[in-house]
Amino acid sequence: MGRMKIQNTPAIRRMPTYLHKLFAMKQEGYTYVSTTVLAQYMNIEPIVVRKDIALTGISGLRRVGYEINELIEYIKNFLGWQHTVNACLVGAGSLGSALLGYQDFESYGLNISSVFDQDANKIGTSIHGHQVLDIYTAPRVLKNHPCEMAIICVSTRAAQAVADMLVGLGIQNFWNFANVCLKVPPNVIVQREVIAGGFATLSVKMKSVRNGERPAMEE
Amino acid sequence: MGRMKIQNTPAIRRMPTYLHKLFAMKQEGYTYVSTTVLAQYMNIEPIVVRKDIALTGISGLRRVGYEINELIEYIKNFLGWQHTVNACLVGAGSLGSALLGYQDFESYGLNISSVFDQDANKIGTSIHGHQVLDIYTAPRVLKNHPCEMAIICVSTRAAQAVADMLVGLGIQNFWNFANVCLKVPPNVIVQREVIAGGFATLSVKMKSVRNGERPAMEE
Repeated sequence: MGRMKIQNTPAIRRMPTYLHKLFAMKQEGYTYVSTTVLAQYMNIEPIVVRKDIALTGISGLRRVGYEINELIEYIKNFLGWQHTVNACLVGAGSLGSALLGYQDFESYGLNISSVFDQDANKIGTSIHGHQVLDIYTAPRVLKNHPCEMAIICVSTRAAQAVADMLVGLGIQNFWNFANVCLKVPPNVIVQREVIAGGFATLSVKMKSVRNGERPAMEE
Repeated sequence: MGRMKIQNTPAIRRMPTYLHKLFAMKQEGYTYVSTTVLAQYMNIEPIVVRKDIALTGISGLRRVGYEINELIEYIKNFLGWQHTVNACLVGAGSLGSALLGYQDFESYGLNISSVFDQDANKIGTSIHGHQVLDIYTAPRVLKNHPCEMAIICVSTRAAQAVADMLVGLGIQNFWNFANVCLKVPPNVIVQREVIAGGFATLSVKMKSVRNGERPAMEE
């Protein structure tokens, strides 16, 4: 394989939740936030929050915590979210629709600029303000409105063919919700979402409680 | 907090993907599987697969790998998936519908035994074979058909009230897809799914490529 491993994956996965809370606190008029507040909100240990935040390179103030605006910027920089990423979404079924309705993406710099499907009943309809386009128009649409990333929400069966087409159109980053590991050239990045992964984690927590251990904290 | 930390979360999240591949190989008539095959399928290093599988306690055979049926049993035992878990799902919107259509849950021992919503337009309809029930009938329904776990797919705003009600009805395990950290009593387990967590991980990979590093492997 010879590919780099991304370190600190669980910490990275927590970053959007910190941002979500920081945006809310900012809206409520707060200027500073302590690790204790973030830890209580997320039901995790303060030391975990401190380690996560340290990854971003920010320095906190003793007894005060972090300046909220500054922490937002450090987290965004850490994730590469300073710039907007244009993405197309393929597959306007229930999962695709759920993603199109997810309101936080905008503040994370994710702009879903085109939505494709092959179903004649969906093409031309509008979902959360996004018009569904015919997948066969993708070459033309993506030429006029290039995007860096594709979100794959099609069926397991269709996912590889869709990915092949999009790789051919120059897309190098995939967020894959289909239940299949995509085969892509080595220069292409795939982030696969395994919906059952969370159920697996919950199951291990439930098992440890059945075995008489204390309930595990939220990840 | 004083709660236990679940170790090896990324490994646990990969387990359903191993199972998915093992089920497929079994169907294709294979009896044994090597770590190399699993590593290639998932685009991860063989050493990662070996470490993940070692967590289950199975012993492999040199040059042969693992007996597929045996590995399936070890993974299921590790996750506590030998027994079926009955769950109710609350919120039959697009995300809830997507989860109801997820076919692998059954083979993971997750049985969604009741579906609730408060929307009069949804109550009485059928989604992937599940009839949507009025949320206000939950006390009676859950008394007759108890479930161990609830899947929360309602809006951010409604999630806490729904969780409070379900905790009151004795549900102690929550798989929460709403964009909020639920407040629950200390004996209740919450597994929160942060949809943007995957986008955060993908973004860090994209950033490392922009900085001239090689593309990171799939998690």
